[in-house]
Amino acid sequence: MSEFDRDIAVNKNGVDTYAAELAPGWVVGGGVNGGYLLAVVASALRQHLPTKPDPITMSATYASASTPGPAEVRIDVRRDGRSLATAIAELWQGDDLRLTVLATYGDLAALHAAGEPLEHVTAVPPDLPPREQCLAASLAPDRMRRTAPMLERFDMLFHPEQVGWAVGAPTEQGRISAWYRLADGREPDPLSLLQVIDALPPVTFDFGMPGWAPTLELTCHVRHRPAPGWLQVVHATRHLAGGMFEEDCEVWDSAGRLVAQGRQLARLPRVR
Amino acid sequence: MSEFDRDIAVNKNGVDTYAAELAPGWVVGGGVNGGYLLAVVASALRQHLPTKPDPITMSATYASASTPGPAEVRIDVRRDGRSLATAIAELWQGDDLRLTVLATYGDLAALHAAGEPLEHVTAVPPDLPPREQCLAASLAPDRMRRTAPMLERFDMLFHPEQVGWAVGAPTEQGRISAWYRLADGREPDPLSLLQVIDALPPVTFDFGMPGWAPTLELTCHVRHRPAPGWLQVVHATRHLAGGMFEEDCEVWDSAGRLVAQGRQLARLPRVR
Repeated sequence: MSEFDRDIAVNKNGVDTYAAELAPGWVVGGGVNGGYLLAVVASALRQHLPTKPDPITMSATYASASTPGPAEVRIDVRRDGRSLATAIAELWQGDDLRLTVLATYGDLAALHAAGEPLEHVTAVPPDLPPREQCLAASLAPDRMRRTAPMLERFDMLFHPEQVGWAVGAPTEQGRISAWYRLADGREPDPLSLLQVIDALPPVTFDFGMPGWAPTLELTCHVRHRPAPGWLQVVHATRHLAGGMFEEDCEVWDSAGRLVAQGRQLARLPRVR
Repeated sequence: MSEFDRDIAVNKNGVDTYAAELAPGWVVGGGVNGGYLLAVVASALRQHLPTKPDPITMSATYASASTPGPAEVRIDVRRDGRSLATAIAELWQGDDLRLTVLATYGDLAALHAAGEPLEHVTAVPPDLPPREQCLAASLAPDRMRRTAPMLERFDMLFHPEQVGWAVGAPTEQGRISAWYRLADGREPDPLSLLQVIDALPPVTFDFGMPGWAPTLELTCHVRHRPAPGWLQVVHATRHLAGGMFEEDCEVWDSAGRLVAQGRQLARLPRVR
């Protein structure tokens, strides 16, 4: 079993509840990565909705920072229709609410087969150089890697022109892109994409603000089951104002398809 | 009292419930406009959270089409913190669930005052010509106006180069923009912005698909209390594929600020 599948596994322990064990390997800074937490919730929802295997949309609000250890996913199905189900799911640790999720589940293959075949994609993949010309997250200083064991979970190769922030020279363009794959070679699927959309550093790094940017809300649309192989991921903001910023994430698969789109609203770090 | 305020008014009728009356004036096609419904829910949340007057983020999934008449908003506050509250709110009509909303409320002015003053906005307003050169929605044929009384609620002036769909010549660019104000002159505020982000025709009109595009999920971020005056609104898609499309909406106020960003995932109409 892959590291990722082991770490998002849940066990049904009630009619609508699932026990999880948040893995220490996904810690980054002072908490557990929000994308990994979303995948844990998604793993419980998948088990709970056996005829609708894929997260289509997930909207999450984060209530408090998670810690490694036991957790529980509580599911409240609001509607279970022919092709789509809507559910509220929460992640709890003891008496502490960690996140609340509004989810739509379905079967991506069936939805695609039932829909109009028209395609019109004007979004373009990030202009990433070949991987051998990119800069690996594993080159980060020991000090940073000690506080971010999550960096061991995947290979992340940054666009060399978008990592000035790592050496004190942010570009102030608000754009960071990278190649991504899970370190043990586990291929991407709709659940792992939920981690991917929150894996890169916040775009505020690129404005010289390396601190923690607390997410207020994060929504992900999963549009295709991804092809095997490396993913290309880009984070960008078009709107940083009023102490908050929007961060858009796009994930492209090895077949050149836009497989997931994420958007979050986060607060700016307090200290530059 | 303005038409909009009258139509979104709610009356507390239980500890966590509010009675609403969905107004026939917001019908469009076979249902009641989803943005108006979101504003009705937001109106109940504002009453329920008196120290946090502004919707900051609203994520909604639509379960079934609403009809004019009585409805109830049921609120479940999940967390009420120092500056932000998170709640789930649902709109019901009898035994029918209409929509489920995951909301974050706060005080925009206080959030702005507490945040970093840094601004970086690369998003640009739609390139709308002066209003006298734009095409009014009121020019729509009687047949269309009869099925869309909503069109009487606001003045909407379309970019003249983005209304080819109205005369059978869609541009296939996936972009529609317009000037907007409420017909009775009621000035915009964070609640009315929730209607604005779902007021324009779906971008699929611009691909020659004038049918109803059912929303799977809609998220809105309200970023500023808008200045008085006309708003500029743009709908665009960058990703129409697999029987679904993403539609991004931006709303700019008369002071030139991006005041709200919406994104929805919707299914393509079945029939072109």
